[in-house]
Amino acid sequence: MNSVWINELTWENVREYLNEDDLVIIPVGSTEQHGPAGPLGVDCYAAIAIAEDAAVKTNVLVTPPLWFSDSPHHLEFPGTISLKPETLINVIKDIVHSLERNGFKKFLIVNGHKGTNIPALTIACRELQQYELPNIRMALTDPLYLCTNASEVKGDNAEHHAGVLEISHVMYKFPGLVKESELPDEEVELHKVFDNYIKKDLFGGNKPVVELFWNSYQQKEFAPNGSFSASNNSSAVTGKHYHDNMVNNLVAFIKWFKTYNI
Amino acid sequence: MNSVWINELTWENVREYLNEDDLVIIPVGSTEQHGPAGPLGVDCYAAIAIAEDAAVKTNVLVTPPLWFSDSPHHLEFPGTISLKPETLINVIKDIVHSLERNGFKKFLIVNGHKGTNIPALTIACRELQQYELPNIRMALTDPLYLCTNASEVKGDNAEHHAGVLEISHVMYKFPGLVKESELPDEEVELHKVFDNYIKKDLFGGNKPVVELFWNSYQQKEFAPNGSFSASNNSSAVTGKHYHDNMVNNLVAFIKWFKTYNI
Amino acid sequence: MNSVWINELTWENVREYLNEDDLVIIPVGSTEQHGPAGPLGVDCYAAIAIAEDAAVKTNVLVTPPLWFSDSPHHLEFPGTISLKPETLINVIKDIVHSLERNGFKKFLIVNGHKGTNIPALTIACRELQQYELPNIRMALTDPLYLCTNASEVKGDNAEHHAGVLEISHVMYKFPGLVKESELPDEEVELHKVFDNYIKKDLFGGNKPVVELFWNSYQQKEFAPNGSFSASNNSSAVTGKHYHDNMVNNLVAFIKWFKTYNI
Amino acid sequence: MNSVWINELTWENVREYLNEDDLVIIPVGSTEQHGPAGPLGVDCYAAIAIAEDAAVKTNVLVTPPLWFSDSPHHLEFPGTISLKPETLINVIKDIVHSLERNGFKKFLIVNGHKGTNIPALTIACRELQQYELPNIRMALTDPLYLCTNASEVKGDNAEHHAGVLEISHVMYKFPGLVKESELPDEEVELHKVFDNYIKKDLFGGNKPVVELFWNSYQQKEFAPNGSFSASNNSSAVTGKHYHDNMVNNLVAFIKWFKTYNI
Amino acid sequence: MNSVWINELTWENVREYLNEDDLVIIPVGSTEQHGPAGPLGVDCYAAIAIAEDAAVKTNVLVTPPLWFSDSPHHLEFPGTISLKPETLINVIKDIVHSLERNGFKKFLIVNGHKGTNIPALTIACRELQQYELPNIRMALTDPLYLCTNASEVKGDNAEHHAGVLEISHVMYKFPGLVKESELPDEEVELHKVFDNYIKKDLFGGNKPVVELFWNSYQQKEFAPNGSFSASNNSSAVTGKHYHDNMVNNLVAFIKWFKTYNI
Amino acid sequence: MNSVWINELTWENVREYLNEDDLVIIPVGSTEQHGPAGPLGVDCYAAIAIAEDAAVKTNVLVTPPLWFSDSPHHLEFPGTISLKPETLINVIKDIVHSLERNGFKKFLIVNGHKGTNIPALTIACRELQQYELPNIRMALTDPLYLCTNASEVKGDNAEHHAGVLEISHVMYKFPGLVKESELPDEEVELHKVFDNYIKKDLFGGNKPVVELFWNSYQQKEFAPNGSFSASNNSSAVTGKHYHDNMVNNLVAFIKWFKTYNI
Repeated sequence: MNSVWINELTWENVREYLNEDDLVIIPVGSTEQHGPAGPLGVDCYAAIAIAEDAAVKTNVLVTPPLWFSDSPHHLEFPGTISLKPETLINVIKDIVHSLERNGFKKFLIVNGHKGTNIPALTIACRELQQYELPNIRMALTDPLYLCTNASEVKGDNAEHHAGVLEISHVMYKFPGLVKESELPDEEVELHKVFDNYIKKDLFGGNKPVVELFWNSYQQKEFAPNGSFSASNNSSAVTGKHYHDNMVNNLVAFIKWFKTYNI
Repeated sequence: MNSVWINELTWENVREYLNEDDLVIIPVGSTEQHGPAGPLGVDCYAAIAIAEDAAVKTNVLVTPPLWFSDSPHHLEFPGTISLKPETLINVIKDIVHSLERNGFKKFLIVNGHKGTNIPALTIACRELQQYELPNIRMALTDPLYLCTNASEVKGDNAEHHAGVLEISHVMYKFPGLVKESELPDEEVELHKVFDNYIKKDLFGGNKPVVELFWNSYQQKEFAPNGSFSASNNSSAVTGKHYHDNMVNNLVAFIKWFKTYNI
Repeated sequence: MNSVWINELTWENVREYLNEDDLVIIPVGSTEQHGPAGPLGVDCYAAIAIAEDAAVKTNVLVTPPLWFSDSPHHLEFPGTISLKPETLINVIKDIVHSLERNGFKKFLIVNGHKGTNIPALTIACRELQQYELPNIRMALTDPLYLCTNASEVKGDNAEHHAGVLEISHVMYKFPGLVKESELPDEEVELHKVFDNYIKKDLFGGNKPVVELFWNSYQQKEFAPNGSFSASNNSSAVTGKHYHDNMVNNLVAFIKWFKTYNI
Repeated sequence: MNSVWINELTWENVREYLNEDDLVIIPVGSTEQHGPAGPLGVDCYAAIAIAEDAAVKTNVLVTPPLWFSDSPHHLEFPGTISLKPETLINVIKDIVHSLERNGFKKFLIVNGHKGTNIPALTIACRELQQYELPNIRMALTDPLYLCTNASEVKGDNAEHHAGVLEISHVMYKFPGLVKESELPDEEVELHKVFDNYIKKDLFGGNKPVVELFWNSYQQKEFAPNGSFSASNNSSAVTGKHYHDNMVNNLVAFIKWFKTYNI
Repeated sequence: MNSVWINELTWENVREYLNEDDLVIIPVGSTEQHGPAGPLGVDCYAAIAIAEDAAVKTNVLVTPPLWFSDSPHHLEFPGTISLKPETLINVIKDIVHSLERNGFKKFLIVNGHKGTNIPALTIACRELQQYELPNIRMALTDPLYLCTNASEVKGDNAEHHAGVLEISHVMYKFPGLVKESELPDEEVELHKVFDNYIKKDLFGGNKPVVELFWNSYQQKEFAPNGSFSASNNSSAVTGKHYHDNMVNNLVAFIKWFKTYNI
Repeated sequence: MNSVWINELTWENVREYLNEDDLVIIPVGSTEQHGPAGPLGVDCYAAIAIAEDAAVKTNVLVTPPLWFSDSPHHLEFPGTISLKPETLINVIKDIVHSLERNGFKKFLIVNGHKGTNIPALTIACRELQQYELPNIRMALTDPLYLCTNASEVKGDNAEHHAGVLEISHVMYKFPGLVKESELPDEEVELHKVFDNYIKKDLFGGNKPVVELFWNSYQQKEFAPNGSFSASNNSSAVTGKHYHDNMVNNLVAFIKWFKTYNI
């Protein structure tokens, strides 16, 4: 196959693939503000980069990316586009139903948008596998799960929205899109807003005893430039460490998932 | 007030409460198999017990419990009742809209059903606070978050579905409902099914790099008696340690949440 | 079986029951104001009491109660919680689908909330039996149908919302929950609002030639304390007469329903 | 106005009417089998006839009829067309929202289809008046409510589906549409199917203590020719008595409804 | 058969028809302003007239008409009734599902409402034939397609909403319903509003390079009397030429459609 | 601005744009088979190419593309992904609502997928502008409308699915993606299937008098390789003529649309 991207192949290429394999990756991004320096497409670039590199190493196909997903709390920032959870669930279901008809059986969603998308994507996966297509197998991942070297890569930076890791990721894989001169050197003091009821760092620390939710009006107040994190230490090198670790973890999973038959 | 339960009060009692406070707890349980020894109501008993005791200590009101929620993977076990995620979301929304009309502003969902409910409940909370009632504040908790002493209480037992902690909880608060002679002494070897792609223990260990989903047909295969955990070490004493820790954590949160005004 | 309540049983208890019978009762209540003396849970207490006593006498199982249903016209009274009709329909459908999977075939909804719930429950029953699960059999009842001795029990009291019968019912089965000192001694003169276009008494008289609807804003005007009825003659003795009559009628039906095979 | 039917008027005619009045009638029929002699449109003819004659006598406008509604249990009989309850609810809501925009405030649904439609129409009325347009006033009627002389008109005939009254009604108002030679002279013995759990006559007798539902597969079994009633005594004269009584009752209501302002 | 209208037949008549044929026509109209002279029912009269005459000539059955459909941009004009597209789609689906159960296989929608209805009707047709009932065959027509002699019949009049052709059609088939003295002699200068981005005439000229949409607020501004067209040249003779051409074209299609078996 | 693509900009870039303009382009593609030579992404490549080039020439912003839309009749061909119309409508609505919050007022959908998408996109545009956001202005275009030089560019080739024009378009703008050696030299004889009831060429000829629909099962029969058209004459030069004409037409429209204020 000349490409892992279904959009670059003919239907006969896909038919040929299905003679030998039945796994497909669905990259899900977002169009959502990422502070004064990050482009609105950060999450989709992350999903594209991870999905593509893991697919190439494992010879699996990838659907075109979904550029829109569930981003309600960023809606006060121009350019942000948020799908309602129900819409996102239905998009995923329609994609899976379409592909299942002709022989795909294993679906791996590579989410680049972190936690906000997880509930809708989880519901889509569970309803598909339980009620609609019980013979398929769904899997879901995200940088929050895939990255197992966060603390060593980012050092002391607390990684929250628009943090060093995701900004560095874009710098490494999509050079030129980050406005490096605008990278903020201060983080939002989230504990002043949420006390202990927020995770200290997206990649580490325990879940708080209660989960709080905030909306876009609140967020615009406590994070007026859109970034939660200091990201002035971002670099393509950091991005590469972060990326390679995730791709390696994903490649290992895909190899196992190909053999999974329960 | 003679009771924290709204169903035991008159509307004038509630009006009086609203003159001074605006917080309400919504306990969400399930009706779902809990192995050969646990009653189908385990999760709702958990939510009721935690909500009631925390409410009494903080003088807040509690709605009647929701006995049904999202339990698809238990559907091969007779007596299990599962709401579709969309139904559950709408029940929560209708409850919150009804109460908000007359003055409630802070809503604390105490889920007793663990992770399976979290996506639907999260979507309900986020949509309510973002799109529908931006002046309310939603909070969500669950034993998975509230319990901060799991390992010391349960020792080496791996806590999965129908584990020592939740079984002991019922033994402590609702004596007589657990069939103690049927408590299983073996756990399901989940790693044989999911390799490393499942959490070692619901209350500890890292999230795996990819989340896998299973349906009721698979679960009936790999956990034929319905329990994932050995729970023969369960006891009312263990239940009390587990319960008191959670109630204390929740009481501390409620006190803070009353003051939260962002 | 130690209990008729599914939530108190294990899934193996339910499986055992299904070896011999296939009927289940679903009690549906509400959380809705019942005047200055009645607790908000009146309707659910009614459904629980009737369902439980009839189930014990006929050895059938009962699901946990649904504490929330369709109560729009009470929404100006704090503590009232109303599900949209569509939500209520979906809850009933999800309950029935879940139970039907493992062998239940006959479903008896015991509504405690009177007429307001009937449209949504009827639609759920009809759609289930026609379009979704044509082999099941649905039945629906309510105090409005079950009580055949209303006039002899309540005497001249016109029974409308929060009337002598339903208040007495709670006094008999759940002593302590009615604030007896607040029982109103006046009824709302409904004919001043609706002329002849309202039933004289919920348990008697002809349907008017046209049905009128009112919303919560209107109701708050014409029934400012929430009760439509004088209920100061309520008593546990009256409640017992009312209750026993309904349970006897329901027991007779259940016995017949077990034999119904058309 | 030359016509009471909105479809026969120009929008300027309607605007003129709204300068003086704000009430409109919505006739709702069905397309559903009515036995070997009754045309499929019986219920719509009933709604049209009642609505038109009452409208002419009170100078109110009528929307075009809705020829389709909720008829699930007749679906085994060719030509029957049934809307799902949700569809019917939405049609009614869309009609009312459209008309309310330009000044209509009072909506009177004249249902010709009897009980099966009542749940969906009731939900539409209640949701419109409670949640969507609280300043409108909804009213709903049907031959089951409007006819107050049933027993004197029909004598001993038990009136069920396709009974003497509704057949006679068509003979009187739409002569030629009933195949008189095919009028059945036997009724279905409903008590053999439903014991006492069915009303003895649609226009008389008490509601049974439990409501049972049946689907089209059952109905085709117990009423193979589609009629439940003997209707060979039908006549235009009977139809006139039935019709005039209903129109008179409706005219009285409309006059009162025009003055209703609560 | 005495009639082509299903509502005038018994179910046994329909069963008999299904022994020999399986095609049915569904006429779809609207209730929507048609300027100062046209009645609100113009589109439904068109659908009824075309469907009936073509059905009589080809011996096929016709369902009762749907008097309501998608008319949003006319909503500022009293009497207009608009269904939401989703409602209209569901009505069509429910009609088709009902009829398909007993043997209808070919469904021909005769829309009288022109372009505004086409999207919803198209979606209904496509979803039915693709996802829900793949063995049925759907066809859709409208005066915009059926009329092949527009320019010779209407001469130089630009035909837009409430134009000479549709007004003449009503004058021919439903004499007395058009207020002839009010027929406007001026057309709206649509190009002043939409430049070249609107079709010059509904029956001729190329589609513009971009489609613009307008809502009822805009339309009330640029077409304050509701008509877009000069229609003072309308006549029953013109209506007959227009009608006969459409019926002939439809008859030819129906004959072919009966033989279509792919 | 360095880019017209919102995903490549920061939210502050977008805010700056909104100080001066309020128009945005939404490119909508599909992932759908395009015969043995065309990649599955043809339609999205078309939308991207047209949108980008017109945006650059007019200094307007473009959202990321939507890669999935309504393609039901291609579902038998592996790799095709089809959204249900309702899903597509909701995606468009969510995108527009998100952007409207912060100041966008004019939305131009550039569809690359031709006619199949038009119904859903039209409904989205009309509902948004009528019911949800009456102050916005929606516009919709597609190669079917935009291309005004089709016959001179493609000569005698009948352009249907996967025809010379759209294949050449990809060859010009995305060289390397078309498998040129597989370009079919025969077209499907559509008139054998649909007689005269199909357009002779997507870019020319009259609409037939009735529209027929076909599903994926039928299409797989009559067009087994997925292409309807002979496309072996495709070339980058042809693609350039086609593309430039469309971009010029779109640029002219955008300039006019910026001034449109009705």
